[in-house]
Amino acid sequence: MKERKITLSEDEIPERWYNIVADMPNKPRLPLHPGTKEPISPDMLAPLFPEALIQQEVSTDRWIDIPDEVRDLFSLWRPTPVYRAYEFEKALGTSCRIYYKYEGISPAGSHKPNTAIPQAWYNKQEGIRRVTTETGAGQWGSALSFACRHFGIDCEVYMVKISYLQKPYRKLLMNTWGAKVIASPSTETEAGRSILAQDPNSPGSLGIAISEAVEQAAKRDDTKYALGSVLNHVLMHQTIIGLEAERQMEKAGDVPDIVIAPFGGGSNFAGLAFPFLRHNLTEGKKIRCIAAEPASCPKLTRGVFRYDFGDSVGMTPLIPMYTLGHNFVPDPIHAGGLRYHGAGAVVSQLLHNQLIEAQALPQTECFQAGVIFASSEGILPAPEATHGIGVAIREAREADFAGTPKTILFNLCGHGHFDMAAYQSYFDGQIVDHELSAEEVQTLIDQINMPEVV
Amino acid sequence: MKERKITLSEDEIPERWYNIVADMPNKPRLPLHPGTKEPISPDMLAPLFPEALIQQEVSTDRWIDIPDEVRDLFSLWRPTPVYRAYEFEKALGTSCRIYYKYEGISPAGSHKPNTAIPQAWYNKQEGIRRVTTETGAGQWGSALSFACRHFGIDCEVYMVKISYLQKPYRKLLMNTWGAKVIASPSTETEAGRSILAQDPNSPGSLGIAISEAVEQAAKRDDTKYALGSVLNHVLMHQTIIGLEAERQMEKAGDVPDIVIAPFGGGSNFAGLAFPFLRHNLTEGKKIRCIAAEPASCPKLTRGVFRYDFGDSVGMTPLIPMYTLGHNFVPDPIHAGGLRYHGAGAVVSQLLHNQLIEAQALPQTECFQAGVIFASSEGILPAPEATHGIGVAIREAREADFAGTPKTILFNLCGHGHFDMAAYQSYFDGQIVDHELSAEEVQTLIDQINMPEVV
Repeated sequence: MKERKITLSEDEIPERWYNIVADMPNKPRLPLHPGTKEPISPDMLAPLFPEALIQQEVSTDRWIDIPDEVRDLFSLWRPTPVYRAYEFEKALGTSCRIYYKYEGISPAGSHKPNTAIPQAWYNKQEGIRRVTTETGAGQWGSALSFACRHFGIDCEVYMVKISYLQKPYRKLLMNTWGAKVIASPSTETEAGRSILAQDPNSPGSLGIAISEAVEQAAKRDDTKYALGSVLNHVLMHQTIIGLEAERQMEKAGDVPDIVIAPFGGGSNFAGLAFPFLRHNLTEGKKIRCIAAEPASCPKLTRGVFRYDFGDSVGMTPLIPMYTLGHNFVPDPIHAGGLRYHGAGAVVSQLLHNQLIEAQALPQTECFQAGVIFASSEGILPAPEATHGIGVAIREAREADFAGTPKTILFNLCGHGHFDMAAYQSYFDGQIVDHELSAEEVQTLIDQINMPEVV
Repeated sequence: MKERKITLSEDEIPERWYNIVADMPNKPRLPLHPGTKEPISPDMLAPLFPEALIQQEVSTDRWIDIPDEVRDLFSLWRPTPVYRAYEFEKALGTSCRIYYKYEGISPAGSHKPNTAIPQAWYNKQEGIRRVTTETGAGQWGSALSFACRHFGIDCEVYMVKISYLQKPYRKLLMNTWGAKVIASPSTETEAGRSILAQDPNSPGSLGIAISEAVEQAAKRDDTKYALGSVLNHVLMHQTIIGLEAERQMEKAGDVPDIVIAPFGGGSNFAGLAFPFLRHNLTEGKKIRCIAAEPASCPKLTRGVFRYDFGDSVGMTPLIPMYTLGHNFVPDPIHAGGLRYHGAGAVVSQLLHNQLIEAQALPQTECFQAGVIFASSEGILPAPEATHGIGVAIREAREADFAGTPKTILFNLCGHGHFDMAAYQSYFDGQIVDHELSAEEVQTLIDQINMPEVV
């Protein structure tokens, strides 16, 4: 009997999140105030976030306790399994050992509830009655809808218009959990109206949707804002993935040489990779941690390290990030969760210091990888997740070619059951790869006009 | 920390299926040859099924070994968890303890791979190169597609036309796993053409699709037919659900008073219930086993016990079954997997002997139950699965009213990620309940014109 699944009991759900900032040789720079260009102080974030989350955002403690009630609700689906991908290995004909952590068994079908639940809980503790947010593919929005429903908080989701149109069932799932969903750019906010004035047919972007959600939260005292990636506390909440995986790899008696995860704003990647990266930072281990981004939105591989806005309109502090510019509107690819112009401060600093790697993949390569995976392991991956699978295939082939088989672990961050229209397009041959030309990238960078991070 | 999930290790995947026929006080009657009306002999099934499955179909052995290779592939997702539904209990405000066995984590998202994999495997062993089948909601067709893909067998699926139209993504999932999918009734078979001649707009039914798949299999030596429910061997394959659940309830230190599962042809229900029913049959226990059927297709609660065809055209042997007549075309409800005119011989005999119970539920009650469940436990159930939830709610309320809380276990047979159009209809108020009138039922029964089972 092959041991395919490496499981943990509910008691083994981690009791603490890992904050990588404590172990970074060069700490991430503080965000700047957009007007004064001075580092912001934590209290300036108070209109948008509850106090406890602001404390986590600026914390340099290595470990932060997970509240009991949050851990208890996690146990609806956590710990998630790590699978040894025997069938996938056979399909590839590789000598590598491949493992994946499967986050698709959560209520929303992705890793997003790992931070949605604590964010909703901390807001609830501080008496907040409404939370606004943005969503790309709908994974984050549905996760937050479920979390808010559980704790009895209203949830308002600005959904990137192209996803709103491509994924009506994601919207319906949010409605099922009681959320109000608005296509972004919308006419409900100043930010949305200004974008629509410039381009009435704007497909929207995560950056625009963030502007709208932030604007609504800033307006009312009983309302806060929740972000699904990028910020330190969000990345930290996701480390529960890697902390579980670390224990599971120990149980399997194996050590990953390569750890891979899809990259949008950074939380997917940080979630799996940071607990492994810790061993590089503190014990001199050499685990390669690779972020997998779409070739149509290549901020890690082709962007620049600048202070830039987290949103499109320019309402947020200036974050030290690898960016293609906050005005960049990525192609409406199906991996909607990866359509974001920048990377969080912590991951950007790590990339800058060459402590992590990145690869950019075209869509067709990703879908092809997804179909190989679905046919062998039986799980149909989300378009976002296929980016991790794509890099795993590249690395396995390279290791086989070099005659040095590796142990590879990737984050299968979600299932693709709500993305069948994307697979339909792929099978119908309607997906065209668009790699940015050198000129296009240069033009984007020239437009940024923001201070470099030093 | 609440213990919500009761899990088993891969080593605890059952090694044998349970054949309830061994313990039945009155054995099911043999099927009859449609021409001679004499009991059929096993060799008459040889054109349609591999030898090993025919042996299982007529076996009276209590336990039948599961082949190692089948168990190994089961370990892709089995054992499945049993959950204590704390959040659902809270939402209902019930004093009952409610558990559910969750089969939705399989590749196809339902319990169907439990029999698809052994059926494909036995066909492979006997050199079969192509398998035909029917599918209603698409759950069975996608399960068989995945199983055939794994063992390198061609798969041809006749999909009930109304589901083919309602659920294009289920079709796409089958295509992803390499199957050929045909809307039924089709012009590819005599059976399909004869139905279309009578009614060019026929929405199809499982009975019609079976006729088409059987006809195609009977034509070619390298092709066999696979059925997703009804037959003894199929029901037996599903007992892996209840055998696991039995051990899991022991681990939880609890004993179910009531066991509930949705009912289409019988395999969903048999799968969970038979291993518990065994204790009633052999040890005098009194566990209530309740089949949950749709009010629009009420063969158990309002049908008659007759010999009837398994298909619509009349190509199969006459099966002793509770039936509404093989010509009955149920309303095109969203629980496509429950739109079947009859019940398998074993479950019919058990019902006739009052060893099991049945309840019929209107669609709106089921969807309402499904939304309560999704909002509390986080899992969005398939329309078929909501029937089991609906009966669980009825029984919990009754027990609370009587002041005698019960332990309830139901089969959450699949997720509803491919059924969002159904939920959309429900939220839009477009679902109308259609309970058959006494006259309609009488008319159906008068038309049956088949021998009673004595």
